Amino acid sequence: MEKTTICAISTAPGVGGVAVIRLSGPDALRIAEHVYKPVSRKESVSEQEPYTLSFGYIMQENEVLDNVLLAVFRAPHSFTGEDTVEISCHGSLYIQQQLLQLLVRHGAEVARPGEFTQRAFLNGKMDLSQAEAVADLIASTSSSSHRLAMNQMRGGFSKELQYLRSQLLDFVSLIELELDFGEEELEFADRTKLILLANDIKTIIAKLVNSFSLGNAIKNGIPVVIVGETNAGKSTLLNHLLNEEKALVSEIHGTTRDSIEDVLTINGISFRFIDTAGIRDTGDEIESLGIKRTFQKIDQASIVIWMIDTTHFNTEIEYIADKIVPRTKNKQLIIVFNKIDKISPEEQLILEEEFLPHVPAERIYLSAKYKQNTEKLERALLKAANLPDMQANDVVITNLRHYEGLSKALESINRVEEGLKEGISGDFVAQDIRECMHYLGEITGEISTDEVLGNIFKNFCVGK
Amino acid sequence: MEKTTICAISTAPGVGGVAVIRLSGPDALRIAEHVYKPVSRKESVSEQEPYTLSFGYIMQENEVLDNVLLAVFRAPHSFTGEDTVEISCHGSLYIQQQLLQLLVRHGAEVARPGEFTQRAFLNGKMDLSQAEAVADLIASTSSSSHRLAMNQMRGGFSKELQYLRSQLLDFVSLIELELDFGEEELEFADRTKLILLANDIKTIIAKLVNSFSLGNAIKNGIPVVIVGETNAGKSTLLNHLLNEEKALVSEIHGTTRDSIEDVLTINGISFRFIDTAGIRDTGDEIESLGIKRTFQKIDQASIVIWMIDTTHFNTEIEYIADKIVPRTKNKQLIIVFNKIDKISPEEQLILEEEFLPHVPAERIYLSAKYKQNTEKLERALLKAANLPDMQANDVVITNLRHYEGLSKALESINRVEEGLKEGISGDFVAQDIRECMHYLGEITGEISTDEVLGNIFKNFCVGK
Repeated sequence: MEKTTICAISTAPGVGGVAVIRLSGPDALRIAEHVYKPVSRKESVSEQEPYTLSFGYIMQENEVLDNVLLAVFRAPHSFTGEDTVEISCHGSLYIQQQLLQLLVRHGAEVARPGEFTQRAFLNGKMDLSQAEAVADLIASTSSSSHRLAMNQMRGGFSKELQYLRSQLLDFVSLIELELDFGEEELEFADRTKLILLANDIKTIIAKLVNSFSLGNAIKNGIPVVIVGETNAGKSTLLNHLLNEEKALVSEIHGTTRDSIEDVLTINGISFRFIDTAGIRDTGDEIESLGIKRTFQKIDQASIVIWMIDTTHFNTEIEYIADKIVPRTKNKQLIIVFNKIDKISPEEQLILEEEFLPHVPAERIYLSAKYKQNTEKLERALLKAANLPDMQANDVVITNLRHYEGLSKALESINRVEEGLKEGISGDFVAQDIRECMHYLGEITGEISTDEVLGNIFKNFCVGK
Repeated sequence: MEKTTICAISTAPGVGGVAVIRLSGPDALRIAEHVYKPVSRKESVSEQEPYTLSFGYIMQENEVLDNVLLAVFRAPHSFTGEDTVEISCHGSLYIQQQLLQLLVRHGAEVARPGEFTQRAFLNGKMDLSQAEAVADLIASTSSSSHRLAMNQMRGGFSKELQYLRSQLLDFVSLIELELDFGEEELEFADRTKLILLANDIKTIIAKLVNSFSLGNAIKNGIPVVIVGETNAGKSTLLNHLLNEEKALVSEIHGTTRDSIEDVLTINGISFRFIDTAGIRDTGDEIESLGIKRTFQKIDQASIVIWMIDTTHFNTEIEYIADKIVPRTKNKQLIIVFNKIDKISPEEQLILEEEFLPHVPAERIYLSAKYKQNTEKLERALLKAANLPDMQANDVVITNLRHYEGLSKALESINRVEEGLKEGISGDFVAQDIRECMHYLGEITGEISTDEVLGNIFKNFCVGK
């Protein structure tokens, strides 16, 4: 248990109808009692029943700072596992700041980013991978990233790791039991069975490691680049795709979507559009920095949309094809023929049959301006994302730290399997199993250092 | 009572640790029950005791959308006076939007701006001036604007108006009693006493009307303009004054102060700096649009700071003096001599004695760059603001609508007093008293139209 009591504004920064200030630690109730005068109840804060609310005043130098609702939670039945008070005040910046300062004057400390969640971890309310999922959950912007974070926060991944660790523990116990009787050259465990067990564990870890590419795509969005000449209609298309969604969002909530600008979510999958202004329609500039930058962006993308103005074919098209197409070999290429409203069906037929027939690409004929066939592009993007169907309870790794830990665990269990096959000494096998357990333990936080914790929680928002 | 149930995100827009979604109306408990599965309690939402919290899951199509805390309030013991549920969820944009949509799918309507407060008014939880104070409280950014809004929200102004109306009611009752016995030419009430009573009421209303200039200055900040040549150091000074405060604020809370940029708060009083880039040091441009714009800005300001580079005197100084000084006649003028670190004490003495000795102005000698004497400027600003000392319970009008209503009430009570002095018929006197009561009633909302309510609440934030 920590000895300090921490406080922070837990709601989004800025002015709102309501703001919530959270106070957690051994002195939370005492500090709240000093600044709060209940109106709706007779009891003081420290007499207030847990999981109840009272209405009252925050007093500052004999003046009412605000009318608030105050909720009391008692250790260990709170998010942090400590005594906790949550104060809902009016969401004025002035009131939020004054209230925080008032709590600090009465002995609370301003919480570091993620410190409430860190305490929840340290007090055994959740393991480290669950704590990390809290930040992912808050940052989630699509149904699939939300689902992965929620599953992880609710312990789906932890259960998988627990299962692996219990298997490894049984395994190592058997080996170490042999070692205790080492001089008698006993083999309690059938080597064939042990190899099968190691293989089973390896398969599970490998599956988790492999899920990272999916998890990362879902968490960070699938990078998409649109290339093409300036007048091909790239921004018209992008604005059209994005605006539909923006309108939907702003209808529900008066937020700006600045932070997630140029992210298009289709069926819960986020497509992150990498800014491109690379290719101009003068030959000189194609040769210049522009094409280099476009190349770099293509390298970052998983999906490349090549946009062509069907009314404006020229020799540069072939030039672009020569330069761009080879770079998309391990990527999904979608060729978008824009402005089809301006060409005849016959002309489109010729395009379909004769335009770079040997280039493997999805081809979409649309009009960005008149929003014709743009939904076909959305379906093509989903298809190009090529994500396996995810079930609600599938465990998918989204966190680089977990990926690295699991990759190391995979190496260890590989060595175990190989060692058993080669019949090496039980000492070495046991050591590799212990190492594998160690790496898994780092993920759940059974083994952790201040440095690791510091790196994890510094990326949290303050107040969580 | 309203028949619909409304919902909104009540916390500030954006991502935060926690967000609060509020649901109010006759179906609030039923709707919450459909989407919420309690974990920490056995009772369903509709069985949950008021003023208690439960922990549980928001379910969306058999998946957990979020782990939340859910608070229940029952009519009439809630902010709106209706059944109310408040859900604290994780502050992800995705979760906030999904939860709101989920509530809408189960029959709630998205609340209009201020609709919760409007319902509180319509359900008799507060009068209209108190409802208006809720928005002022949320918008308050300084201790004085906060204090005025808090006093008004807690009913300080309402009590004053109630007192006035009760006085006026006694008054009109006496006059109308006479009218009932009209043919007998009776005078129940001593005319001299009635004139004194009218005068008393007039004095109180006039005091309230006059408090508006103070209230408006506190609520909106005192407009200050800095004029001077481009190289006089205006922005250095302004940045220095503002940054000190910004640092203080950002230490406490990771907010940007964009919305209140260029507002300097000294001892709880806000000074609003009007952007100026008017005067350049070429004669031509002084003649041009620049000087016109500067004139307009001076007209908007209450305090004018004229900043002079003491190392760079030229003939334009006199030109500026001729043009600017006459326009500051009814304003407070502060002449700031900047860069005093670069002149000798003797040179400063000459300035003090010889620079425009007949212009009435506060004179400050400072160095913006080396932060020398800038605190003297802050004191000069406070002095120039010339605000009377305000006691905690003083009633000060901050709202233009109240000011207009009181001004009309003042005209009516003036006519009453004059009418009594001139001995005009009781009918007319009674009509003027009724009119005075009508204007006061509009302020508290005893008399209100949909149009008036619409205008008031449209300026609220959503969720309050």
